Amino acid sequence: MSDTQEHREEPDLPYDVFAKACPSRCTLENVTGRWGALTLGALHEGSLRFNELRRRVDGVSEKMLSQTLHALERDGLVHREAQPTNPPRVDYELTPVGREVAARLLELIHCVEGRMDDVLAARTAYDAHRA
Amino acid sequence: MSDTQEHREEPDLPYDVFAKACPSRCTLENVTGRWGALTLGALHEGSLRFNELRRRVDGVSEKMLSQTLHALERDGLVHREAQPTNPPRVDYELTPVGREVAARLLELIHCVEGRMDDVLAARTAYDAHRA
Repeated sequence: MSDTQEHREEPDLPYDVFAKACPSRCTLENVTGRWGALTLGALHEGSLRFNELRRRVDGVSEKMLSQTLHALERDGLVHREAQPTNPPRVDYELTPVGREVAARLLELIHCVEGRMDDVLAARTAYDAHRA
Repeated sequence: MSDTQEHREEPDLPYDVFAKACPSRCTLENVTGRWGALTLGALHEGSLRFNELRRRVDGVSEKMLSQTLHALERDGLVHREAQPTNPPRVDYELTPVGREVAARLLELIHCVEGRMDDVLAARTAYDAHRA
């Protein structure tokens, strides 16, 4: 439509994480942040309660997990279901959009895990070169 | 081999980002961090010089881009090529492992960009519910 749009690589997508002001950059950061990525990855295995999630995402504090879940819930990636029981029980699960995103994220995670031998060899070589 | 390994979901992978002490967690953070993700994404389009990268990764400071490139180079994902010219010219490009990782990352980025209408609608609903 406009000149600007002709230069875009994917002209049918109005969002671009490379642009500082694009809201997709914030969502990408919620998805790939230190705890966001592990939380989405954990929930891809099925719905979990808060404390189950906290055990699965090794090292996360209660506060950080709570903040992470709020951000993912606000972006519509995680659904929070409070059961009217006593004591109250809260389950977290991925929404359909959250499942799509988490699936891509897990492919990335598995790719990184599968290449760690190369990564660690590169690190050793890099550090030796600079020692 | 061991009891522990029998309980793993992918017994042939010795690395697990969910484990706090696993080195793959650090690499995942280098790959998905605020600037790491955009730097890998930009270099997936081809090799770039420092200032070209800085323009492409809108909003990054010189210091942060430099730190990001060092971490990615140390992990063997980015190759730094200094040309013996005057003034010196430095090109950055993805290694073969970096290309694999960046390809998965771009699939995730495109998935997020493609779902931003849903994400923004979810945010509006979330904020309205809490206002």
